[in-house]
Amino acid sequence: MDDRALLAGVAAIIGSEQTLDDCAVVRCDSRCLVLTTDMLHESTDFPTGMTDWQIGWMSAAVTISDIASMGATPCWLLLAAGLDRGERLAGITAGAYACCERFGCRLVGGDTDHHEELTVVTTGIGAVMPDRVVRRQGSRAGDLICMTGVPGEAEAGLHGFKQHWYTLIEPQPRVAEGQAIGRAGASAMMDVSDGLALSLYDLQTANPSVGYTIRSRLLRRPAGVPPAEGLELALFGGGDFELLFTCAQDRYPIAGVDATVIGAVTDQPGVLLDGEVLEKRGYQHLWHETR
Amino acid sequence: MDDRALLAGVAAIIGSEQTLDDCAVVRCDSRCLVLTTDMLHESTDFPTGMTDWQIGWMSAAVTISDIASMGATPCWLLLAAGLDRGERLAGITAGAYACCERFGCRLVGGDTDHHEELTVVTTGIGAVMPDRVVRRQGSRAGDLICMTGVPGEAEAGLHGFKQHWYTLIEPQPRVAEGQAIGRAGASAMMDVSDGLALSLYDLQTANPSVGYTIRSRLLRRPAGVPPAEGLELALFGGGDFELLFTCAQDRYPIAGVDATVIGAVTDQPGVLLDGEVLEKRGYQHLWHETR
Repeated sequence: MDDRALLAGVAAIIGSEQTLDDCAVVRCDSRCLVLTTDMLHESTDFPTGMTDWQIGWMSAAVTISDIASMGATPCWLLLAAGLDRGERLAGITAGAYACCERFGCRLVGGDTDHHEELTVVTTGIGAVMPDRVVRRQGSRAGDLICMTGVPGEAEAGLHGFKQHWYTLIEPQPRVAEGQAIGRAGASAMMDVSDGLALSLYDLQTANPSVGYTIRSRLLRRPAGVPPAEGLELALFGGGDFELLFTCAQDRYPIAGVDATVIGAVTDQPGVLLDGEVLEKRGYQHLWHETR
Repeated sequence: MDDRALLAGVAAIIGSEQTLDDCAVVRCDSRCLVLTTDMLHESTDFPTGMTDWQIGWMSAAVTISDIASMGATPCWLLLAAGLDRGERLAGITAGAYACCERFGCRLVGGDTDHHEELTVVTTGIGAVMPDRVVRRQGSRAGDLICMTGVPGEAEAGLHGFKQHWYTLIEPQPRVAEGQAIGRAGASAMMDVSDGLALSLYDLQTANPSVGYTIRSRLLRRPAGVPPAEGLELALFGGGDFELLFTCAQDRYPIAGVDATVIGAVTDQPGVLLDGEVLEKRGYQHLWHETR
Protein backbone atom coordinates (compact mmCIF):
# COMPACT_ATOMS: atom_id res chain seq x y z
CA MET A 1 0.00 0.00 0.00
CA ASP A 2 1.36 3.46 -0.86
CA ASP A 3 0.41 7.05 -0.04
CA ARG A 4 -2.07 7.29 -2.86
CA ALA A 5 -3.87 4.06 -1.92
CA LEU A 6 -4.17 5.24 1.68
CA LEU A 7 -5.53 8.55 0.47
CA ALA A 8 -8.28 6.74 -1.40
CA GLY A 9 -9.35 5.16 1.90
CA VAL A 10 -9.46 8.55 3.59
CA ALA A 11 -11.40 10.04 0.66
CA ALA A 12 -14.07 7.37 1.18
CA ILE A 13 -14.64 8.77 4.69
CA ILE A 14 -14.18 12.52 4.37
CA GLY A 15 -15.03 12.99 0.68
CA SER A 16 -12.74 13.16 -2.34
CA GLU A 17 -13.20 16.86 -2.91
CA GLN A 18 -11.04 17.45 0.17
CA THR A 19 -8.21 15.06 -0.73
CA LEU A 20 -7.55 15.94 -4.37
CA ASP A 21 -5.46 19.08 -3.83
CA ASP A 22 -2.30 20.08 -2.00
CA CYS A 23 -4.56 21.94 0.45
CA ALA A 24 -8.13 21.76 1.67
CA VAL A 25 -10.12 24.83 0.60
CA VAL A 26 -12.73 26.28 2.96
CA ARG A 27 -14.70 29.50 2.96
CA CYS A 28 -14.16 32.15 5.67
CA ASP A 29 -16.19 35.32 5.20
CA SER A 30 -15.27 36.80 1.81
CA ARG A 31 -12.08 34.79 1.44
CA CYS A 32 -11.03 31.21 0.93
CA LEU A 33 -8.69 29.67 3.44
CA VAL A 34 -6.38 26.88 2.29
CA LEU A 35 -5.30 24.38 4.94
CA THR A 36 -2.48 21.85 4.78
CA THR A 37 -0.39 19.69 7.09
CA ASP A 38 2.87 17.80 6.50
CA MET A 39 4.60 15.18 8.62
CA LEU A 40 8.36 14.68 8.29
CA HIS A 41 10.62 12.15 10.02
CA GLU A 42 14.35 12.32 10.51
CA SER A 43 15.23 8.95 8.94
CA THR A 44 13.09 9.34 5.80
CA ASP A 45 12.75 13.05 5.14
CA PHE A 46 15.82 14.90 6.43
CA PRO A 47 19.07 14.09 4.58
CA THR A 48 22.04 13.35 6.82
CA GLY A 49 24.07 16.46 7.51
CA MET A 50 21.21 18.91 7.97
CA THR A 51 21.33 21.22 10.97
CA ASP A 52 18.35 21.64 13.26
CA TRP A 53 17.86 25.13 11.79
CA GLN A 54 17.68 23.62 8.29
CA ILE A 55 15.25 20.95 9.51
CA GLY A 56 13.00 23.73 10.79
CA TRP A 57 13.36 25.70 7.55
CA MET A 58 12.53 22.67 5.39
CA SER A 59 9.54 21.72 7.56
CA ALA A 60 8.05 25.17 7.11
CA ALA A 61 8.97 25.33 3.41
CA VAL A 62 7.14 22.15 2.39
CA THR A 63 3.92 23.46 3.92
CA ILE A 64 4.32 26.96 2.52
CA SER A 65 4.88 25.34 -0.90
CA ASP A 66 1.53 23.56 -0.63
CA ILE A 67 -0.12 26.92 0.04
CA ALA A 68 1.77 28.53 -2.86
CA SER A 69 0.57 25.76 -5.18
CA MET A 70 -3.05 26.89 -4.63
CA GLY A 71 -2.23 30.48 -5.63
CA ALA A 72 -2.71 31.53 -2.00
CA THR A 73 -0.82 33.77 0.42
CA PRO A 74 0.68 31.93 3.41
CA CYS A 75 -0.63 33.51 6.63
CA TRP A 76 -0.03 31.32 9.68
CA LEU A 77 1.99 28.25 10.55
CA LEU A 78 1.88 25.83 13.49
CA LEU A 79 4.73 23.45 14.29
CA ALA A 80 4.45 20.22 16.30
CA ALA A 81 7.74 18.53 17.18
CA GLY A 82 8.31 15.04 18.54
CA LEU A 83 11.80 15.48 19.97
CA ASP A 84 14.48 12.92 20.73
CA ARG A 85 16.30 15.67 22.65
CA GLY A 86 14.56 18.76 24.01
CA GLU A 87 17.45 21.07 23.20
CA ARG A 88 16.84 20.62 19.46
CA LEU A 89 13.61 22.62 19.65
CA ALA A 90 15.31 26.03 19.70
CA GLY A 91 17.18 25.44 16.42
CA ILE A 92 14.18 23.89 14.70
CA THR A 93 11.92 26.74 15.80
CA ALA A 94 14.45 29.37 14.67
CA GLY A 95 14.70 27.76 11.22
CA ALA A 96 10.94 27.53 10.80
CA TYR A 97 10.58 31.11 12.00
CA ALA A 98 13.15 32.32 9.45
CA CYS A 99 11.40 30.52 6.59
CA CYS A 100 8.04 31.96 7.66
CA GLU A 101 9.52 35.48 7.86
CA ARG A 102 11.06 35.10 4.39
CA PHE A 103 7.69 34.26 2.85
CA GLY A 104 5.44 36.61 4.80
CA CYS A 105 3.94 33.93 7.05
CA ARG A 106 3.65 34.03 10.87
CA LEU A 107 4.73 31.13 13.08
CA VAL A 108 2.04 31.33 15.73
CA GLY A 109 2.23 28.18 17.83
CA GLY A 110 2.74 24.48 18.14
CA ASP A 111 3.15 21.49 20.40
CA THR A 112 6.02 19.35 21.62
CA ASP A 113 6.31 15.76 22.74
CA HIS A 114 9.13 13.32 23.42
CA HIS A 115 9.82 10.87 20.62
CA GLU A 116 12.60 8.39 19.85
CA GLU A 117 12.88 9.63 16.27
CA LEU A 118 12.62 13.32 15.51
CA THR A 119 9.21 14.02 13.94
CA VAL A 120 8.11 17.46 12.76
CA VAL A 121 4.58 18.28 11.66
CA THR A 122 3.83 21.68 10.22
CA THR A 123 0.35 22.97 9.49
CA GLY A 124 -0.17 26.01 7.34
CA ILE A 125 -3.11 28.28 6.69
CA GLY A 126 -3.23 30.55 3.67
CA ALA A 127 -5.78 32.94 2.25
CA VAL A 128 -6.87 33.67 -1.29
CA MET A 129 -9.78 35.36 -3.02
CA PRO A 130 -12.24 32.71 -4.25
CA ASP A 131 -11.72 33.57 -7.95
CA ARG A 132 -7.94 33.17 -7.63
CA VAL A 133 -7.78 29.65 -6.18
CA VAL A 134 -6.02 27.21 -8.50
CA ARG A 135 -6.76 23.53 -7.96
CA ARG A 136 -5.41 20.34 -9.50
CA GLN A 137 -8.68 19.98 -11.38
CA GLY A 138 -9.30 22.27 -14.36
CA SER A 139 -6.87 21.46 -17.20
CA ARG A 140 -8.40 21.75 -20.68
CA ALA A 141 -7.23 20.14 -23.90
CA GLY A 142 -4.99 22.61 -25.70
CA ASP A 143 -3.56 24.12 -22.50
CA LEU A 144 0.18 24.41 -22.11
CA ILE A 145 1.94 22.32 -19.45
CA CYS A 146 4.46 24.55 -17.66
CA MET A 147 6.72 24.43 -14.64
CA THR A 148 8.86 26.83 -12.66
CA GLY A 149 12.58 26.27 -12.13
CA VAL A 150 14.62 23.16 -12.87
CA PRO A 151 13.30 19.71 -11.94
CA GLY A 152 15.73 17.21 -10.42
CA GLU A 153 18.01 19.61 -8.62
CA ALA A 154 17.07 18.45 -5.12
CA GLU A 155 17.65 14.79 -5.92
CA ALA A 156 20.92 15.76 -7.64
CA GLY A 157 21.94 17.37 -4.35
CA LEU A 158 21.10 14.11 -2.56
CA HIS A 159 23.22 12.19 -5.10
CA GLY A 160 26.33 14.22 -4.29
CA PHE A 161 26.19 17.07 -6.80
CA LYS A 162 27.26 19.67 -4.27
CA GLN A 163 26.07 22.74 -6.18
CA HIS A 164 22.50 21.47 -5.61
CA TRP A 165 22.81 20.70 -1.88
CA TYR A 166 21.08 23.89 -0.76
CA THR A 167 18.21 23.37 -3.19
CA LEU A 168 17.65 20.10 -1.35
CA ILE A 169 17.98 21.24 2.26
CA GLU A 170 16.86 24.87 2.14
CA PRO A 171 14.06 24.73 -0.43
CA GLN A 172 12.52 28.00 -1.58
CA PRO A 173 8.76 27.66 -2.04
CA ARG A 174 7.45 29.58 -5.06
CA VAL A 175 5.07 31.86 -3.21
CA ALA A 176 5.18 34.96 -5.41
CA GLU A 177 5.12 32.75 -8.51
CA GLY A 178 2.07 30.81 -7.27
CA GLN A 179 0.15 34.03 -6.66
CA ALA A 180 1.10 35.39 -10.11
CA ILE A 181 0.06 32.12 -11.76
CA GLY A 182 -3.28 32.32 -9.92
CA ARG A 183 -3.81 35.94 -11.01
CA ALA A 184 -3.01 34.93 -14.60
CA GLY A 185 -5.87 32.42 -14.54
CA ALA A 186 -3.98 29.12 -14.77
CA SER A 187 -6.32 26.16 -15.15
CA ALA A 188 -4.60 23.72 -12.74
CA MET A 189 -1.58 23.70 -10.42
CA MET A 190 0.33 21.62 -7.85
CA ASP A 191 3.88 21.41 -6.53
CA VAL A 192 6.20 18.66 -7.76
CA SER A 193 7.61 17.55 -4.40
CA ASP A 194 7.10 13.84 -5.21
CA GLY A 195 8.72 14.27 -8.64
CA LEU A 196 7.50 15.48 -12.02
CA ALA A 197 6.28 12.10 -13.28
CA LEU A 198 4.11 11.32 -10.24
CA SER A 199 2.81 14.89 -10.28
CA LEU A 200 1.68 14.52 -13.89
CA TYR A 201 -0.13 11.33 -12.88
CA ASP A 202 -1.75 13.25 -10.00
CA LEU A 203 -3.01 15.82 -12.52
CA GLN A 204 -4.28 12.95 -14.66
CA THR A 205 -6.20 11.56 -11.67
CA ALA A 206 -7.79 14.96 -11.04
CA ASN A 207 -8.55 15.45 -14.76
CA PRO A 208 -9.50 12.03 -16.13
CA SER A 209 -10.89 13.26 -19.43
CA VAL A 210 -7.70 14.91 -20.73
CA GLY A 211 -4.09 13.74 -21.14
CA TYR A 212 -0.64 15.17 -20.44
CA THR A 213 2.09 14.99 -23.09
CA ILE A 214 5.55 16.31 -22.34
CA ARG A 215 8.74 16.48 -24.44
CA SER A 216 12.15 15.56 -23.04
CA ARG A 217 13.86 18.23 -25.15
CA LEU A 218 11.77 20.91 -23.40
CA LEU A 219 12.76 19.81 -19.90
CA ARG A 220 15.44 21.75 -18.09
CA ARG A 221 18.02 19.54 -16.38
CA PRO A 222 20.11 20.10 -13.25
CA ALA A 223 23.41 21.79 -14.13
CA GLY A 224 26.60 19.74 -13.91
CA VAL A 225 24.83 16.37 -14.18
CA PRO A 226 25.48 14.04 -17.19
CA PRO A 227 22.55 14.25 -19.68
CA ALA A 228 21.01 10.79 -19.16
CA GLU A 229 21.19 11.03 -15.38
CA GLY A 230 19.88 14.60 -15.60
CA LEU A 231 16.76 13.44 -17.45
CA GLU A 232 16.22 10.64 -14.94
CA LEU A 233 16.45 13.11 -12.05
CA ALA A 234 14.23 15.69 -13.78
CA LEU A 235 11.46 13.13 -14.31
CA PHE A 236 11.62 10.99 -11.19
CA GLY A 237 13.62 12.90 -8.55
CA GLY A 238 11.76 14.13 -5.45
CA GLY A 239 12.24 17.05 -3.11
CA ASP A 240 11.84 19.91 -5.58
CA PHE A 241 9.31 22.54 -4.62
CA GLU A 242 8.70 23.93 -8.06
CA LEU A 243 5.19 24.53 -9.41
CA LEU A 244 3.65 22.48 -12.21
CA PHE A 245 0.70 24.19 -13.89
CA THR A 246 -1.45 24.23 -16.99
CA CYS A 247 -2.81 27.35 -18.64
CA ALA A 248 -4.41 28.50 -21.88
CA GLN A 249 -1.86 29.51 -24.50
CA ASP A 250 -2.96 33.15 -24.47
CA ARG A 251 -2.18 33.40 -20.74
CA TYR A 252 1.49 32.55 -21.19
CA PRO A 253 4.16 33.79 -20.44
CA ILE A 254 3.30 35.15 -17.00
CA ALA A 255 5.09 38.32 -15.87
CA GLY A 256 7.49 37.68 -13.00
CA VAL A 257 7.39 33.89 -13.28
CA ASP A 258 10.52 32.00 -14.39
CA ALA A 259 8.79 29.06 -16.06
CA THR A 260 9.19 26.85 -19.11
CA VAL A 261 6.64 25.12 -21.32
CA ILE A 262 7.27 21.35 -21.13
CA GLY A 263 4.30 20.02 -23.11
CA ALA A 264 0.59 20.24 -23.81
CA VAL A 265 -2.73 19.00 -22.48
CA THR A 266 -4.44 16.72 -25.02
CA ASP A 267 -7.91 15.23 -25.37
CA GLN A 268 -6.61 11.66 -25.03
CA PRO A 269 -6.18 10.45 -21.42
CA GLY A 270 -2.67 9.29 -20.58
CA VAL A 271 0.69 10.67 -19.46
CA LEU A 272 3.21 10.57 -22.32
CA LEU A 273 6.88 11.45 -22.71
CA ASP A 274 7.92 11.89 -26.36
CA GLY A 275 4.86 9.87 -27.40
CA GLU A 276 5.49 6.91 -25.07
CA VAL A 277 3.73 6.18 -21.76
CA LEU A 278 5.75 7.80 -18.98
CA GLU A 279 6.80 5.45 -16.19
CA LYS A 280 4.78 6.08 -12.99
CA ARG A 281 7.39 6.31 -10.29
CA GLY A 282 8.97 8.89 -8.01
CA TYR A 283 9.05 9.60 -4.32
CA GLN A 284 6.46 7.47 -2.52
CA HIS A 285 6.18 6.35 1.07
CA LEU A 286 5.66 2.62 1.30
CA TRP A 287 4.21 0.68 4.18
CA HIS A 288 5.11 -2.83 5.21
CA GLU A 289 1.79 -4.55 5.66
CA THR A 290 2.95 -7.23 8.03
CA ARG A 291 5.89 -7.29 10.36
CA MET B 1 13.69 20.05 30.82
CA ASP B 2 9.89 19.81 30.66
CA ASP B 3 7.15 21.07 28.33
CA ARG B 4 6.92 24.41 30.04
CA ALA B 5 10.68 25.04 29.93
CA LEU B 6 10.72 24.21 26.21
CA LEU B 7 7.81 26.54 25.64
CA ALA B 8 9.78 29.39 27.20
CA GLY B 9 12.48 28.81 24.58
CA VAL B 10 9.93 28.93 21.78
CA ALA B 11 8.36 32.07 23.24
CA ALA B 12 11.76 33.78 23.03
CA ILE B 13 11.65 33.26 19.26
CA ILE B 14 8.02 33.68 18.26
CA GLY B 15 6.82 35.94 21.09
CA SER B 16 5.09 35.02 24.34
CA GLU B 17 1.71 36.41 23.31
CA GLN B 18 1.38 33.40 21.00
CA THR B 19 2.41 30.71 23.48
CA LEU B 20 0.39 31.66 26.54
CA ASP B 21 -2.96 30.19 25.51
CA ASP B 22 -4.35 26.84 24.41
CA CYS B 23 -4.64 28.32 20.90
CA ALA B 24 -3.00 31.07 18.89
CA VAL B 25 -5.47 33.86 18.11
CA VAL B 26 -5.31 35.63 14.74
CA ARG B 27 -7.61 38.04 12.95
CA CYS B 28 -9.41 37.05 9.73
CA ASP B 29 -11.78 39.70 8.38
CA SER B 30 -14.37 40.41 11.09
CA ARG B 31 -13.65 37.26 13.05
CA CYS B 32 -10.87 35.82 15.17
CA LEU B 33 -9.50 32.45 14.21
CA VAL B 34 -8.03 30.26 16.92
CA LEU B 35 -5.35 27.77 15.83
CA THR B 36 -3.98 24.80 17.72
CA THR B 37 -2.03 21.61 17.08
CA ASP B 38 -1.51 18.50 19.25
CA MET B 39 0.92 15.62 18.85
CA LEU B 40 0.08 12.24 20.40
CA HIS B 41 2.16 9.04 20.47
CA GLU B 42 0.96 5.52 21.03
CA SER B 43 3.30 4.64 23.93
CA THR B 44 2.75 7.84 25.94
CA ASP B 45 -0.71 9.13 25.06
CA PHE B 46 -2.99 6.24 24.12
CA PRO B 47 -3.79 3.83 26.97
CA THR B 48 -3.43 0.15 26.13
CA GLY B 49 -6.70 -1.32 24.94
CA MET B 50 -7.88 1.56 22.80
CA THR B 51 -9.16 0.78 19.31
CA ASP B 52 -7.94 2.71 16.27
CA TRP B 53 -11.37 4.38 16.13
CA GLN B 54 -10.94 5.57 19.74
CA ILE B 55 -7.39 6.78 18.95
CA GLY B 56 -8.85 8.89 16.14
CA TRP B 57 -11.66 10.17 18.39
CA MET B 58 -9.25 11.14 21.17
CA SER B 59 -6.85 12.83 18.76
CA ALA B 60 -9.64 15.04 17.44
CA ALA B 61 -11.11 15.62 20.91
CA VAL B 62 -7.95 17.05 22.47
CA THR B 63 -7.69 19.65 19.71
CA ILE B 64 -11.39 20.49 19.75
CA SER B 65 -11.06 20.96 23.52
CA ASP B 66 -8.31 23.54 23.00
CA ILE B 67 -10.65 25.44 20.67
CA ALA B 68 -13.52 25.16 23.18
CA SER B 69 -11.30 26.56 25.90
CA MET B 70 -11.03 29.86 23.98
CA GLY B 71 -14.82 30.18 23.75
CA ALA B 72 -14.60 29.46 20.01
CA THR B 73 -16.54 27.27 17.58
CA PRO B 74 -14.50 24.42 16.07
CA CYS B 75 -14.62 24.71 12.26
CA TRP B 76 -11.96 22.59 10.55
CA LEU B 77 -9.54 19.82 11.51
CA LEU B 78 -6.49 18.35 9.79
CA LEU B 79 -5.00 15.00 10.79
CA ALA B 80 -1.43 13.86 10.15
CA ALA B 81 -0.68 10.22 10.94
CA GLY B 82 2.67 8.49 11.20
CA LEU B 83 1.58 4.88 10.78
CA ASP B 84 3.28 1.67 11.82
CA ARG B 85 0.75 -0.16 9.60
CA GLY B 86 -1.11 1.52 6.75
CA GLU B 87 -4.35 -0.32 7.43
CA ARG B 88 -4.79 1.54 10.73
CA LEU B 89 -5.54 4.79 8.89
CA ALA B 90 -9.15 3.90 8.07
CA GLY B 91 -10.12 3.32 11.72
CA ILE B 92 -8.27 6.39 12.96
CA THR B 93 -9.83 8.58 10.27
CA ALA B 94 -13.31 7.23 11.01
CA GLY B 95 -12.92 7.97 14.74
CA ALA B 96 -11.64 11.49 14.12
CA TYR B 97 -14.44 12.07 11.62
CA ALA B 98 -17.06 10.94 14.15
CA CYS B 99 -15.69 13.25 16.84
CA CYS B 100 -15.64 16.17 14.39
CA GLU B 101 -19.24 15.44 13.33
CA ARG B 102 -20.34 15.28 16.97
CA PHE B 103 -18.97 18.75 17.69
CA GLY B 104 -19.85 20.52 14.44
CA CYS B 105 -16.31 20.49 13.03
CA ARG B 106 -15.22 19.34 9.54
CA LEU B 107 -12.30 16.95 8.98
CA VAL B 108 -10.89 18.44 5.78
CA GLY B 109 -7.49 16.87 5.17
CA GLY B 110 -4.22 15.56 6.44
CA ASP B 111 -0.99 13.74 5.68
CA THR B 112 0.38 10.26 6.21
CA ASP B 113 3.86 8.85 6.64
CA HIS B 114 5.37 5.58 7.77
CA HIS B 115 6.58 5.52 11.37
CA GLU B 116 7.72 2.81 13.77
CA GLU B 117 5.50 4.15 16.54
CA LEU B 118 2.02 5.40 15.76
CA THR B 119 2.03 9.21 15.91
CA VAL B 120 -1.08 11.33 15.36
CA VAL B 121 -1.02 15.10 15.01
CA THR B 122 -4.28 17.00 14.81
CA THR B 123 -4.55 20.68 13.96
CA GLY B 124 -7.75 22.56 14.58
CA ILE B 125 -9.07 25.91 13.46
CA GLY B 126 -11.93 27.60 15.23
CA ALA B 127 -13.71 30.91 14.86
CA VAL B 128 -15.03 33.38 17.40
CA MET B 129 -16.14 37.00 17.45
CA PRO B 130 -13.31 39.15 18.83
CA ASP B 131 -15.28 40.26 21.92
CA ARG B 132 -16.02 36.64 22.87
CA VAL B 133 -12.47 35.24 22.95
CA VAL B 134 -11.48 34.07 26.41
CA ARG B 135 -7.74 33.80 27.10
CA ARG B 136 -5.72 32.57 30.04
CA GLN B 137 -4.89 36.15 30.90
CA GLY B 138 -7.57 38.29 32.47
CA SER B 139 -8.41 37.01 35.97
CA ARG B 140 -9.17 39.75 38.49
CA ALA B 141 -8.98 39.59 42.28
CA GLY B 142 -12.43 38.75 43.60
CA ASP B 143 -13.35 36.54 40.63
CA LEU B 144 -14.68 33.06 41.27
CA ILE B 145 -12.60 30.05 40.19
CA CYS B 146 -14.92 27.54 38.50
CA MET B 147 -14.67 24.33 36.54
CA THR B 148 -16.96 22.11 34.51
CA GLY B 149 -17.45 18.43 35.31
CA VAL B 150 -15.52 16.26 37.72
CA PRO B 151 -11.71 16.41 37.80
CA GLY B 152 -9.77 13.16 38.08
CA GLU B 153 -12.17 10.87 36.24
CA ALA B 154 -9.84 10.18 33.32
CA GLU B 155 -6.94 9.23 35.57
CA ALA B 156 -9.33 7.12 37.67
CA GLY B 157 -10.18 5.28 34.46
CA LEU B 158 -6.48 4.72 33.86
CA HIS B 159 -6.11 3.37 37.42
CA GLY B 160 -8.71 0.66 36.85
CA PHE B 161 -11.95 2.29 37.97
CA LYS B 162 -13.94 0.89 35.09
CA GLN B 163 -16.87 3.30 35.26
CA HIS B 164 -14.44 6.05 34.20
CA TRP B 165 -12.79 4.20 31.29
CA TYR B 166 -14.80 5.96 28.61
CA THR B 167 -14.13 9.39 30.11
CA LEU B 168 -10.46 8.55 29.54
CA ILE B 169 -10.58 7.13 26.03
CA GLU B 170 -13.54 8.90 24.47
CA PRO B 171 -13.26 12.37 25.98
CA GLN B 172 -16.06 14.84 25.34
CA PRO B 173 -14.71 18.35 24.79
CA ARG B 174 -16.87 21.04 26.37
CA VAL B 175 -17.67 22.94 23.20
CA ALA B 176 -21.14 24.29 24.01
CA GLU B 177 -19.98 25.07 27.55
CA GLY B 178 -16.92 26.98 26.29
CA GLN B 179 -19.06 29.13 24.03
CA ALA B 180 -21.56 29.82 26.83
CA ILE B 181 -18.74 30.75 29.20
CA GLY B 182 -17.37 33.13 26.55
CA ARG B 183 -20.78 34.73 26.01
CA ALA B 184 -21.13 35.16 29.78
CA GLY B 185 -17.93 37.22 29.84
CA ALA B 186 -15.60 34.97 31.82
CA SER B 187 -12.28 36.65 32.60
CA ALA B 188 -9.94 33.70 31.86
CA MET B 189 -10.22 30.07 30.68
CA MET B 190 -8.22 26.97 29.76
CA ASP B 191 -8.77 23.24 29.69
CA VAL B 192 -7.35 21.05 32.45
CA SER B 193 -5.83 18.29 30.31
CA ASP B 194 -2.54 18.32 32.26
CA GLY B 195 -4.40 18.22 35.59
CA LEU B 196 -6.07 20.85 37.78
CA ALA B 197 -2.95 21.76 39.79
CA LEU B 198 -0.72 22.43 36.78
CA SER B 199 -3.56 24.32 35.11
CA LEU B 200 -3.88 26.64 38.11
CA TYR B 201 -0.14 27.27 37.89
CA ASP B 202 -0.55 28.04 34.17
CA LEU B 203 -3.20 30.62 35.06
CA GLN B 204 -0.82 32.01 37.67
CA THR B 205 1.91 32.35 34.99
CA ALA B 206 -0.51 34.21 32.71
CA ASN B 207 -1.76 36.41 35.57
CA PRO B 208 1.26 37.10 37.80
CA SER B 209 -0.34 39.86 39.86
CA VAL B 210 -3.19 37.78 41.30
CA GLY B 211 -3.39 34.45 43.14
CA TYR B 212 -5.57 31.35 42.97
CA THR B 213 -7.00 29.84 46.15
CA ILE B 214 -9.09 26.69 46.00
CA ARG B 215 -10.82 24.63 48.70
CA SER B 216 -10.67 20.84 48.79
CA ARG B 217 -14.22 20.62 50.17
CA LEU B 218 -15.51 22.38 47.03
CA LEU B 219 -13.85 19.93 44.62
CA ARG B 220 -15.95 17.22 43.08
CA ARG B 221 -14.27 13.77 43.12
CA PRO B 222 -14.58 10.83 40.75
CA ALA B 223 -17.40 8.51 41.85
CA GLY B 224 -16.48 5.15 43.35
CA VAL B 225 -12.96 6.18 44.34
CA PRO B 226 -11.89 6.27 48.05
CA PRO B 227 -11.85 9.91 49.30
CA ALA B 228 -8.08 10.44 49.71
CA GLU B 229 -7.30 8.87 46.33
CA GLY B 230 -10.16 10.85 44.80
CA LEU B 231 -8.66 14.14 45.98
CA GLU B 232 -5.24 13.13 44.66
CA LEU B 233 -6.74 12.32 41.26
CA ALA B 234 -8.86 15.48 41.19
CA LEU B 235 -5.82 17.68 41.81
CA PHE B 236 -3.07 15.93 39.91
CA GLY B 237 -4.68 13.52 37.43
CA GLY B 238 -4.33 14.25 33.70
CA GLY B 239 -6.48 13.52 30.68
CA ASP B 240 -9.64 15.38 31.70
CA PHE B 241 -10.95 17.82 29.13
CA GLU B 242 -12.98 19.95 31.49
CA LEU B 243 -12.80 23.74 31.44
CA LEU B 244 -11.25 25.80 34.23
CA PHE B 245 -12.34 29.43 34.24
CA THR B 246 -12.57 32.55 36.32
CA CYS B 247 -15.42 35.03 36.23
CA ALA B 248 -16.88 37.91 38.19
CA GLN B 249 -19.33 36.81 40.88
CA ASP B 250 -22.28 38.50 39.16
CA ARG B 251 -21.72 36.43 36.01
CA TYR B 252 -22.22 33.11 37.80
CA PRO B 253 -23.96 30.66 37.44
CA ILE B 254 -23.97 30.40 33.64
CA ALA B 255 -27.08 28.98 31.97
CA GLY B 256 -26.47 25.60 30.38
CA VAL B 257 -23.08 25.05 31.99
CA ASP B 258 -22.66 22.28 34.60
CA ALA B 259 -19.91 23.90 36.65
CA THR B 260 -18.89 24.24 40.28
CA VAL B 261 -17.13 27.04 42.14
CA ILE B 262 -13.87 25.69 43.57
CA GLY B 263 -12.27 28.85 44.94
CA ALA B 264 -11.51 32.51 44.42
CA VAL B 265 -8.96 34.76 42.77
CA THR B 266 -7.06 36.82 45.35
CA ASP B 267 -4.73 39.81 45.21
CA GLN B 268 -1.79 37.79 46.61
CA PRO B 269 0.18 35.79 44.00
CA GLY B 270 0.36 32.06 44.70
CA VAL B 271 -1.64 28.87 44.18
CA LEU B 272 -3.14 27.67 47.45
CA LEU B 273 -5.20 24.66 48.54
CA ASP B 274 -6.95 25.18 51.87
CA GLY B 275 -4.46 27.95 52.67
CA GLU B 276 -1.31 25.93 51.89
CA VAL B 277 0.83 26.12 48.75
CA LEU B 278 -0.48 23.55 46.27
CA GLU B 279 2.07 21.09 44.98
CA LYS B 280 3.04 21.83 41.37
CA ARG B 281 2.74 18.50 39.64
CA GLY B 282 0.57 16.71 37.11
CA TYR B 283 0.93 15.39 33.60
CA GLN B 284 4.19 16.62 32.09
CA HIS B 285 6.28 15.30 29.25
CA LEU B 286 9.90 14.93 30.32
CA TRP B 287 12.94 14.78 28.07
CA HIS B 288 16.10 12.87 28.70
CA GLU B 289 18.82 15.37 27.98
CA THR B 290 21.58 12.89 27.18
CA ARG B 291 21.37 9.33 26.01
